[in-house]
Amino acid sequence: MPSLDDFTPACPLPISDYPMILLAHGGGGKLMHQLIESVFVSSFDNPTLNAKLDSAFLQLNTNKIAFTTDSYVVHPLFFPGGDIGTLAVNGTVNDLAMGGARPLYLSAGFILEEGFHTETLWQIAQSMKNAAIDAGVQLVTGDTKVVDKGKGDGVYINTAGIGVIEHDLIISPDSIKAGDVILLSGDIGRHGIAVMAVREGLAFESDIESDCAPLGDVVMDLIKNGIQIHCMRDLTRGGLGCTLVEIAESARINIHISETEIPIREDVQGACEILGLDPIYIANEGRFMCIVPSDQAKKAIKIMQSHLVGEGASIIGRVDDKMEGIVLMSTFIGTSRIIDMPSGEQLPRIC
Amino acid sequence: MPSLDDFTPACPLPISDYPMILLAHGGGGKLMHQLIESVFVSSFDNPTLNAKLDSAFLQLNTNKIAFTTDSYVVHPLFFPGGDIGTLAVNGTVNDLAMGGARPLYLSAGFILEEGFHTETLWQIAQSMKNAAIDAGVQLVTGDTKVVDKGKGDGVYINTAGIGVIEHDLIISPDSIKAGDVILLSGDIGRHGIAVMAVREGLAFESDIESDCAPLGDVVMDLIKNGIQIHCMRDLTRGGLGCTLVEIAESARINIHISETEIPIREDVQGACEILGLDPIYIANEGRFMCIVPSDQAKKAIKIMQSHLVGEGASIIGRVDDKMEGIVLMSTFIGTSRIIDMPSGEQLPRIC
Repeated sequence: MPSLDDFTPACPLPISDYPMILLAHGGGGKLMHQLIESVFVSSFDNPTLNAKLDSAFLQLNTNKIAFTTDSYVVHPLFFPGGDIGTLAVNGTVNDLAMGGARPLYLSAGFILEEGFHTETLWQIAQSMKNAAIDAGVQLVTGDTKVVDKGKGDGVYINTAGIGVIEHDLIISPDSIKAGDVILLSGDIGRHGIAVMAVREGLAFESDIESDCAPLGDVVMDLIKNGIQIHCMRDLTRGGLGCTLVEIAESARINIHISETEIPIREDVQGACEILGLDPIYIANEGRFMCIVPSDQAKKAIKIMQSHLVGEGASIIGRVDDKMEGIVLMSTFIGTSRIIDMPSGEQLPRIC
Repeated sequence: MPSLDDFTPACPLPISDYPMILLAHGGGGKLMHQLIESVFVSSFDNPTLNAKLDSAFLQLNTNKIAFTTDSYVVHPLFFPGGDIGTLAVNGTVNDLAMGGARPLYLSAGFILEEGFHTETLWQIAQSMKNAAIDAGVQLVTGDTKVVDKGKGDGVYINTAGIGVIEHDLIISPDSIKAGDVILLSGDIGRHGIAVMAVREGLAFESDIESDCAPLGDVVMDLIKNGIQIHCMRDLTRGGLGCTLVEIAESARINIHISETEIPIREDVQGACEILGLDPIYIANEGRFMCIVPSDQAKKAIKIMQSHLVGEGASIIGRVDDKMEGIVLMSTFIGTSRIIDMPSGEQLPRIC
């Protein structure tokens, strides 16, 4: 278990009374109310959540919304650069952002394993609170279930998210046109390697931290500045490779990318070689690619680079006029290789 | 594993190739796409889901919405009257309905245990499909994760829901007034006993089926007919007892109920006696109580009784003008007892 940050406020639950989660914490009685009140309501504190109704009431300024969900089962729960809590907020925020929506509200469903440390749950709730503040979203409704020891793995978290759509772009593979340019927001592979390093007990010379971060602001900035985003995806499970193949297949377009243009940190590349992994398939949690008209590429890159999460943004490829639905990568050594979708995953339980 | 209903369509996934869920089904590659496409997209088939974007785009006719979430960890997965799939749809639909919202859209997040039978997952997806049709909602976005064998229990499902609010009622404990009447939609205790009976291998003379059902229609009918609902709750974890205590404490009002007015089937009462359970704390999944002005009680009961899920509706109590925040029940034998909130649960993993 990680050591407690000195700046984490103390958990108001009498932890000495309940150092571990009991089945009874999921039963609808006093213990459950005490847990929800002291760990979740006190962390996520906002009027909508505090009303503690069966559902949260939201007043939106638009009737065009985006709605998404993800469950988080990352193992281990804590890793350099984040934990399951930061992931559960940013992952869902980013899915909304990728739809061109301004992320606003999240729900949170916790599946706790009997015997899980209450203090660890408190830390995760604090991470979620802080990640929500960073991303500009509110956790407005939630649920807590407890399963028997041996039927879970500490905690699994589901978040669903609602965002508002304030523009008329149709961000979808179907909007892609021949000649469009592929932009990547920064270096890839860090999240997956950060998690694997802890899991496998690997030590690297430098610390490889997850890139886990919210992407709402940079996306809103692109849209506000008139960038006609044709397609946009964050590079989570399956990484850049699977994402590009999905898009190419779905839109029946050909995508050409250049290996030399894809930023990968040297230590990440080294770790990939040790672990026998291909970085283009590794999950990221704060990286995205977008496809824009070529005459807007430079402007878009400039906007992306003005945000911390897009500092390393670059053009990595183009869409051509063939319609075979394939992804071709020109490699370092000058050859060309078809990027395929792997059948399974390289890294289980990475998010 | 339950036998397959003859009317269940065959799963389009080549089950002979993948009779069990593999870790790779959660990895973002071909296998995951195949699973999602063949089991979930084919079951929940609708244009929003079929677009397969990171988030679903929804056009709403109001900007007042309700948002809720619940995870479902019921054990066993199948029970008389339903399964985890029907529960995952109706439970979340009912939370929206209890907020006076018309349930419209659900998300679904699946946490699958490695080794889970693909055929069973297909059956659960079919149950969700049918429950969604019955409840008039669409499953528009989803997520699939796979955890290692021994770190789950077959399948856990999270659903989040969005409903629209088309009226100006404020349905909340704060709206309750002295003199208001407590209405109950029907007999209680069946869901909990149905699940416990399978779990404990109990046989009763008659089959006790879960009351699991969607409550959206009856609630919309009450509102449409001008019933001024002051407060409304479905009677899930903690049952009628915990719900009333929560409301009384939150609103600082006293609630009087009469044991003789609470419908409990004889076989349910018998099972409770065998199991040593108090039916007022047992979870229901298709029952609700609502608190309305006394002059509207008869009209409300009539509306409730016109729906299958409210056939057994009755007046079970009143709110008085004391403000101690307690629930008092006059019993069969003429005494009066304070209904308290139990500390844990009677029945773990009931939903």
